[in-house]
Amino acid sequence: MKRKTFEEDACPVARSLEAVGDTWSVLIVRQAFAGDRRFGEFEKSLGIAKNILTDRLRKLVALGVLEQVPIEGSAHHEYALTGKGRGLYLVLMAIRQWGEGCGGPADYTLVDRRDRKPVRPLAFHAHDGRELGADDMELVPTAEVGKVRRARSTAG
Amino acid sequence: MKRKTFEEDACPVARSLEAVGDTWSVLIVRQAFAGDRRFGEFEKSLGIAKNILTDRLRKLVALGVLEQVPIEGSAHHEYALTGKGRGLYLVLMAIRQWGEGCGGPADYTLVDRRDRKPVRPLAFHAHDGRELGADDMELVPTAEVGKVRRARSTAG
Repeated sequence: MKRKTFEEDACPVARSLEAVGDTWSVLIVRQAFAGDRRFGEFEKSLGIAKNILTDRLRKLVALGVLEQVPIEGSAHHEYALTGKGRGLYLVLMAIRQWGEGCGGPADYTLVDRRDRKPVRPLAFHAHDGRELGADDMELVPTAEVGKVRRARSTAG
Repeated sequence: MKRKTFEEDACPVARSLEAVGDTWSVLIVRQAFAGDRRFGEFEKSLGIAKNILTDRLRKLVALGVLEQVPIEGSAHHEYALTGKGRGLYLVLMAIRQWGEGCGGPADYTLVDRRDRKPVRPLAFHAHDGRELGADDMELVPTAEVGKVRRARSTAG
């Protein structure tokens, strides 16, 4: 199925979605965090068709999210998260948090391994630590950051 | 195209992906945050085919992410983010941050409207404010939170 590609899109959201904008790809990454490494493990835990899994694993390797690791004493390999792939943990948890905030059950809670207390919900913070909502923020061209705007009051 | 649905999945990540696990859906939400409200605005800013846009808008309304708002003095309507939809801002910014961390250009920066200084990168924090990495945390059954585990050392 041919479709528009966003790999060269100027927006980092669009570019990232090229990697994670597919339900199966995200669920494969979720399972990699849960400890799945072998083809058969992903297949079993996700109930995914072999051809789709093959395709998505190839794509995630090409994108640098997963890497193939040889299995000692075997001609086969398994899949491990790369550093780039591990960076997706925050994205997964942001998606999870949104799902829970919408009234879904929170069967699992993210805890700090050290004291086993719940981790704070993800939130935006200003440079001085104030918590910010979506309406308190704005995306501006990086070149303009820190410059005072003349045409617009900053009082809100 | 028939495919497995995750609406009833126990995992909130899988359930949320039913809403946002599609590149076009996420980009429509991104454009809604950028101010697009009318069918023609989404069509123009995304270069998306009318039939796909119609399908995704219907789905986002059914999922409670967008709502239809009548346009005064017209038989048409436009689309506005609901409260649930506005909650996706953090997900979008988490995806953006991941994209930027992977070496993509950061043409735009998220700033605090009040002082126009950059917002802190999204990060995990323990209850006492310590910043946590993916390896410092664990998803545990909610019923077990706060209980001391016997079989496992918490020293790491």
